[in-house]
Amino acid sequence: MKKISLMGATGSIGTQTLEVIREHPEEFKLTAFSAGKNIDEARKMIAEFNPLLVSVQLKEDADKLRNEVSAGVKILSGEEGLVQVACHQDSDILVNAVLGSVGLYPTLQAIEAGKTIAIANKETLVTAGHIVMEAAKEKGVALLPVDSEHSAIFQALQGEKEKNIDKLIITASGGSFRDRSREDLVGVTVKEALNHPNWSMGAKITIDSASMMNKGLEVIEAHWLFDMPYDKIDVLQHRESIIHSMIQFHDTSVMAQLGTPDMRVPIQYALTYPDRLERNEAKRLDLAEIGKLHFEKMDFERFRCLKFAYEAGRTGGSMTTVLNAANEAAVSLFLEEKISFLGIEDLIERALDEHEVIQNPDLETIREIDGQTRSAVSRWI
Amino acid sequence: MKKISLMGATGSIGTQTLEVIREHPEEFKLTAFSAGKNIDEARKMIAEFNPLLVSVQLKEDADKLRNEVSAGVKILSGEEGLVQVACHQDSDILVNAVLGSVGLYPTLQAIEAGKTIAIANKETLVTAGHIVMEAAKEKGVALLPVDSEHSAIFQALQGEKEKNIDKLIITASGGSFRDRSREDLVGVTVKEALNHPNWSMGAKITIDSASMMNKGLEVIEAHWLFDMPYDKIDVLQHRESIIHSMIQFHDTSVMAQLGTPDMRVPIQYALTYPDRLERNEAKRLDLAEIGKLHFEKMDFERFRCLKFAYEAGRTGGSMTTVLNAANEAAVSLFLEEKISFLGIEDLIERALDEHEVIQNPDLETIREIDGQTRSAVSRWI
Repeated sequence: MKKISLMGATGSIGTQTLEVIREHPEEFKLTAFSAGKNIDEARKMIAEFNPLLVSVQLKEDADKLRNEVSAGVKILSGEEGLVQVACHQDSDILVNAVLGSVGLYPTLQAIEAGKTIAIANKETLVTAGHIVMEAAKEKGVALLPVDSEHSAIFQALQGEKEKNIDKLIITASGGSFRDRSREDLVGVTVKEALNHPNWSMGAKITIDSASMMNKGLEVIEAHWLFDMPYDKIDVLQHRESIIHSMIQFHDTSVMAQLGTPDMRVPIQYALTYPDRLERNEAKRLDLAEIGKLHFEKMDFERFRCLKFAYEAGRTGGSMTTVLNAANEAAVSLFLEEKISFLGIEDLIERALDEHEVIQNPDLETIREIDGQTRSAVSRWI
Repeated sequence: MKKISLMGATGSIGTQTLEVIREHPEEFKLTAFSAGKNIDEARKMIAEFNPLLVSVQLKEDADKLRNEVSAGVKILSGEEGLVQVACHQDSDILVNAVLGSVGLYPTLQAIEAGKTIAIANKETLVTAGHIVMEAAKEKGVALLPVDSEHSAIFQALQGEKEKNIDKLIITASGGSFRDRSREDLVGVTVKEALNHPNWSMGAKITIDSASMMNKGLEVIEAHWLFDMPYDKIDVLQHRESIIHSMIQFHDTSVMAQLGTPDMRVPIQYALTYPDRLERNEAKRLDLAEIGKLHFEKMDFERFRCLKFAYEAGRTGGSMTTVLNAANEAAVSLFLEEKISFLGIEDLIERALDEHEVIQNPDLETIREIDGQTRSAVSRWI
């Protein structure tokens, strides 16, 4: 029985993590979770999973919930609550499925507490990869990827030696607008951008897919997770999202992980690693039925966010914090219909241009730069 | 420095094994080889690789060679010579790249001598898999696959547990005649059959590819190498031969090995396993350049040899010996233009129909049945 803490239980990865737990009641037990502002969902989840600890975002929601549930369930709120979920003494693994850089501090605390971490929260690594990886190394804590691309690379790496890697090849569906030119992107609506061809995901990551920033963040995440220089990380457009990513070894052999687009597979793999657990009812990949897989070279002029991400990654230091903060702020503004889709790129480009990089920023500096960048982006519109 | 014995040095796999050795003079040393009837090649190879032992098929060739070379090179002939090459005391690994069931006895002797074996000679496993695998298990000897499909499965299996396998998926290019109906196969010539779309291989295996018997033999080989029931081995048509084969695990995840069609990759992997060795000059896979990969369901009525192989494999015992012997005899007759292409299938079908299976045949029985089947097939035309 593996005991699980789950940060971000009501999001897309969070609810699919609950499905995995639900499918294997003999294997997994949810002991703690955080649920943001969605207390209706939190209430249902408490009834179903009977956890020891629950954290919500607002103090008033926590007070309300506390009056409803049995005394055995501890209810907390705010960042302190998140940290308690992350570090819960009665959990073997933390699934970090929160959105954005809010996941950073609790992750560091969980590392300090020696927890194994299944990380779906890529912004944590993008914004402070050097701090997170150094802390994990020092504490001997495993960071297990949950993103389908990084899980594919991680699976392909099993039984292999890192010294033999030629390059990582991250596949990209191309997102909602892959068949549109830049001219065709002028005036696209939020609704159009939210219509991803393959994956059912949250709003922010779906917009990031359409702008290709999601792939850019994944490149930076791969850099940190697999200790790989940017020159050894390629992105390949593959519209079917069947090959989830690959490793090319220096003997020219390429190892790949494939599957139907189903996030429960990488989530479950992170929970069962290094073993696997059967999913008898789940749909199997049928390549004959699919018939064809397509591959195209990535166009860095068409998808400028990907170019920005490589540039910020190569510059390093605080530049990726700015990339991530500017993107989070700009995507929010787009979802609120305050800027256009292409306006996202413009704001990120300006934020990167105006930033003077600080190498090896500490946590305090990162938090400051993150906040300053968000404010600046909001000011600029 | 790994010391290598090579059986079948002048064939397609043999010459490519020599290329791998040549590319890595610091890593590999050829200590013994067999060269069949091609003594011109044997002479050149002795000059280049300076081995300790060489075996040729005919005694008169051995006598001739012995007079030409320095006293440090021992020259033998016949089956005894093959066995000496297979078991050479100064070799760490035997590459078995001979053609047909002639490889069986020397392989068993090498197992007895405790040699690691890189096996390209699939007929050895098809004709006597139960004896070979039991001997290998008893002696704790590793059998490393060289066929690209089995190497792909073996690579995908690294770091994984066999209990988690749902099925093996062996890919098939479809061979020279994949786009022809059965009606279009009437009257095809030897030259047409020898024109494989992807792989440059020997004549026998190229005909086996066109008839799909090669895939059938590979299914049986996979059954023995990976201890997998036939119901868990699928064949998938994939015309580009880029995905060399796959494993589907019970969590629905599929691990695959990909690459350009280049036999030196699996040959080298068998020699370096569990490590890999760089091939800096070799062509890398470029999926964007290839653009599309195609997959089709296998048609067992169109490719009857594949059906025969599954049936013979499921029946087991001496039936796969008959399958292999009838096929070797029939392919020879086709290459000699004594029968038609579709005549290959007819002869195999008759041989299988007329055979009364013996379960758990010993080596003597296998040799007898092998010989009887070949004679019968020659009689029938």
